[in-house]
Amino acid sequence: MELPVSEIRVQRRVQFHETDAAGLVHFSVFFRYMEEAEHALWRAAGLSIAPAGSEIGWPRLETSFEFRQPLRFEDAFEIAIRVVEVASRTLRYECRLTKDGERVATGRLAIVCVRKVAGEPMRAIAIPADIAERFRAVTTDGDRGTEEREIWT
Amino acid sequence: MELPVSEIRVQRRVQFHETDAAGLVHFSVFFRYMEEAEHALWRAAGLSIAPAGSEIGWPRLETSFEFRQPLRFEDAFEIAIRVVEVASRTLRYECRLTKDGERVATGRLAIVCVRKVAGEPMRAIAIPADIAERFRAVTTDGDRGTEEREIWT
Amino acid sequence: MELPVSEIRVQRRVQFHETDAAGLVHFSVFFRYMEEAEHALWRAAGLSIAPAGSEIGWPRLETSFEFRQPLRFEDAFEIAIRVVEVASRTLRYECRLTKDGERVATGRLAIVCVRKVAGEPMRAIAIPADIAERFRAVTTDGDRGTEEREIWT
Amino acid sequence: MELPVSEIRVQRRVQFHETDAAGLVHFSVFFRYMEEAEHALWRAAGLSIAPAGSEIGWPRLETSFEFRQPLRFEDAFEIAIRVVEVASRTLRYECRLTKDGERVATGRLAIVCVRKVAGEPMRAIAIPADIAERFRAVTTDGDRGTEEREIWT
Repeated sequence: MELPVSEIRVQRRVQFHETDAAGLVHFSVFFRYMEEAEHALWRAAGLSIAPAGSEIGWPRLETSFEFRQPLRFEDAFEIAIRVVEVASRTLRYECRLTKDGERVATGRLAIVCVRKVAGEPMRAIAIPADIAERFRAVTTDGDRGTEEREIWT
Repeated sequence: MELPVSEIRVQRRVQFHETDAAGLVHFSVFFRYMEEAEHALWRAAGLSIAPAGSEIGWPRLETSFEFRQPLRFEDAFEIAIRVVEVASRTLRYECRLTKDGERVATGRLAIVCVRKVAGEPMRAIAIPADIAERFRAVTTDGDRGTEEREIWT
Repeated sequence: MELPVSEIRVQRRVQFHETDAAGLVHFSVFFRYMEEAEHALWRAAGLSIAPAGSEIGWPRLETSFEFRQPLRFEDAFEIAIRVVEVASRTLRYECRLTKDGERVATGRLAIVCVRKVAGEPMRAIAIPADIAERFRAVTTDGDRGTEEREIWT
Repeated sequence: MELPVSEIRVQRRVQFHETDAAGLVHFSVFFRYMEEAEHALWRAAGLSIAPAGSEIGWPRLETSFEFRQPLRFEDAFEIAIRVVEVASRTLRYECRLTKDGERVATGRLAIVCVRKVAGEPMRAIAIPADIAERFRAVTTDGDRGTEEREIWT
């Protein structure tokens, strides 16, 4: 994958501990799926979102999911996440889960860059340039290739 | 609590397994907090949202959270959830988490009533009357008492 | 509760996100129940097991559970945990889960006191005296009261 | 992989939601890692441990873990699980987690075959022959190859 990165797709299988007594993946787990893909995207950008000892952190500002169809134990599915905004202090993502090519759920996530000092509240700061330059936002009206359109349109 | 019910407040303490390596409650756990309060509201209405052997289920349609400040290990906090819409097939809630009277996070949740038949897709149905009559939606411009206003305004 | 402390009992209700597609509490969650009671015991001793900024930590050395009967959504149950050994560097607990007075599961947990220095491996150290003196081990042949015997025998 | 199967190795990376405020993978998550490998072993045997609508289930009888060293966010590690006993009604596994060839933790798990009838307690039954014949226990004094010895000894 070339830098800067915009999106990534992760293949995943539903684990038993992710299901609930309704026989479906618990809705809170979708946020974990989205975050797993987010961190894979950072690794593809040559970064860790939480390196040991870092003074910079990325708390979540807001997040949402819309659910179209359920996932069940051992279902194979795909998590696709892409950067939709790189702002001064925040990053925004959109995430689509699909199974056998059909939409399962759509998520959104905004995170903010903060400086962490022991004993003090976290304070929002500008995203360091050497991080911001690794990500490129993709907009829905962009000139992305065929493969992406199939997923994102 | 008198029927129909509109809202409930649950006192909770952060457990260690709910925290992550950033030292904060993982953002996916807020959705579990919201659901714990939702199910307490159903119990206050004399109901279980998932009685053993029921053919009716309540999958989640969409949900979101906005985060204002973090929660940490052993923090004591309050989860307040209220019904904001009782529609034909769906229920909508708003949820506020506070710590020492300060806003921590705000969540929203919409659920849909479905009939579950083994081997078939879940199908949305009208909420049975004996369930719908137990809940009364509270709107933001309503004539609620002082205590509620402090929280919800 | 008087110091030193030996045991505590915590009342709990099964949450939906703790169940799995078999309709039962997932077995990994029992370890979270045991730890929740452990930390309640520390609070009863006037301590936090993980105070902010502490250089001392308590990683788990070994743990086990035997399961007698399952727990299901909304079951009310009791978690009882007691200290069975206070050694130089380690603490050992036994834990019993009961529902309506019947045994559900029995757990064991050994933890070790370590010093954490950033960038170095954790190193086991002697339990500080002001912590060790807050706990008193209870042995099975001890002179505990009737109530305890009913549970622990 | 040929039938019957005895063991499997799964490559895994630590996800952020699996860590806790001590900066380590929460100890309860190791049981989920072990179970993920267990279910991969069943798939390698051509089976699902929880097929939709099955009247047979596999509740956990007892389980344990010994911890040697911690896992941290984004650590790559291996989960190796093998069958150590196929009895009339129970299966027993041993599980070893390694990182860069070094032992991380050792787990054990015993499960029991039950028949599930709605509204009745689960009842232990003999493992169906078409399942039992897919697994072959490996003992520690067996004539396994070099590769296995490196891991299991």
